[in-house]
Amino acid sequence: MEKSNIKTAGLIIIGNEILSGRTQDTNTKTIALKLGDIGINLSEVRVISDNSDTIIEAVRYFSSTYDYVFTTGGIGPTHDDKTAEAIALAFETELYQHPDALSALINHYGGEEHMNDGRVKMTYVPRGATLIDNPVSSAPGFKIKNVHVMAGVPKIMEGMINNIIPTLEGGDIIKSRQVIVNRPESEIADIIEMIETHYKIDVGSYPRYSDGKPQVTIILRGIDDDILDKAMTALSKELN
Amino acid sequence: MEKSNIKTAGLIIIGNEILSGRTQDTNTKTIALKLGDIGINLSEVRVISDNSDTIIEAVRYFSSTYDYVFTTGGIGPTHDDKTAEAIALAFETELYQHPDALSALINHYGGEEHMNDGRVKMTYVPRGATLIDNPVSSAPGFKIKNVHVMAGVPKIMEGMINNIIPTLEGGDIIKSRQVIVNRPESEIADIIEMIETHYKIDVGSYPRYSDGKPQVTIILRGIDDDILDKAMTALSKELN
Repeated sequence: MEKSNIKTAGLIIIGNEILSGRTQDTNTKTIALKLGDIGINLSEVRVISDNSDTIIEAVRYFSSTYDYVFTTGGIGPTHDDKTAEAIALAFETELYQHPDALSALINHYGGEEHMNDGRVKMTYVPRGATLIDNPVSSAPGFKIKNVHVMAGVPKIMEGMINNIIPTLEGGDIIKSRQVIVNRPESEIADIIEMIETHYKIDVGSYPRYSDGKPQVTIILRGIDDDILDKAMTALSKELN
Repeated sequence: MEKSNIKTAGLIIIGNEILSGRTQDTNTKTIALKLGDIGINLSEVRVISDNSDTIIEAVRYFSSTYDYVFTTGGIGPTHDDKTAEAIALAFETELYQHPDALSALINHYGGEEHMNDGRVKMTYVPRGATLIDNPVSSAPGFKIKNVHVMAGVPKIMEGMINNIIPTLEGGDIIKSRQVIVNRPESEIADIIEMIETHYKIDVGSYPRYSDGKPQVTIILRGIDDDILDKAMTALSKELN
């Protein structure tokens, strides 16, 4: 594929509930699509447990590897919400009470008398972080260096990522063309390879079963519409 | 939590289609639940692209870190299916044509004359690997060292993992108790922490929104039913 200005991202899902199989993750898909729309390529996802050392190691590696990093989960009010502290440690800083987070939460809960330890916990962020607005339940996410720290609850995460997206610098937008073929993948493997080699684009083939019969979705991806259209025409011809 | 005989697992999802947001992963949940049932704790999941070096690095790290490793994706007939070769490289061995894989595929496709390059590709596995039967489309997965290599198509993956599960040695089975509370998580954080500390069990709290109102699922986890029941009784009392 043409590589002119590709921006990369990594996503760290801090979520024992995903690892136990109790909860079906949906944040990956939401984030991947929103990033793709502005030309940022999700390159890796890790689902890890809420262990501080594990979080620190993943955040450091991702921050130095990808243009943008996103985390979901572990910024709530309970003792198992360890993300903010771990990220402060990862960047060798400390947590402090952000005045804007405090006033947002006091306002949300209807007065200082409704603040408790759990709510106060959510007003602490690493020094140097800027807040990410939470339009649903007020407790903010935050950004430090290239790491965007979001809630894990899909509804809140989506509110936060919508606030983040306009702040990101996208790269070349990868466009795609798709065709669904009702044949086994093993019958058309050589055609797919020929198209990829000839047009120098990325061609993915994704087999599945539809009503018990093999079906393949072929996706052509690239940054140049003309080349994609030509490849698509050639592919359709080969498949007939 | 009591740690007597905890078995761990790591899952590597080789899937550009998950990273692009085109496909919603469901294999994680299926695998996590099946492993949990026999006392194997899914500890980490990585979703990576079909880049050989990335696969090699992840497989080596997981193989030396977790008791059991599972991979999904990248063992089909096309040029972007690089998993078998990368895993051979990860373990410094080479691919060879497994006679049982060849006869399974010839049989499935109805004769040698129906074999083509893509189908032949699926008969190659790393030296030293044993085959994992594929009850859906015949092309086998394989096991090498502690790494179980499966297809990415959910229906095929499920057929393979069902064949793998009886071969694994499970650990202590982590049991759970669950209660759903219609209150904001920040109101009950102190109760959750008290229960965890007092009963030395793992307590997770998972907030969500139900009809626009905050709701928390509290899950107690441990290997001792008696302790879990006592903690559950205490928790219910505190929540009333």
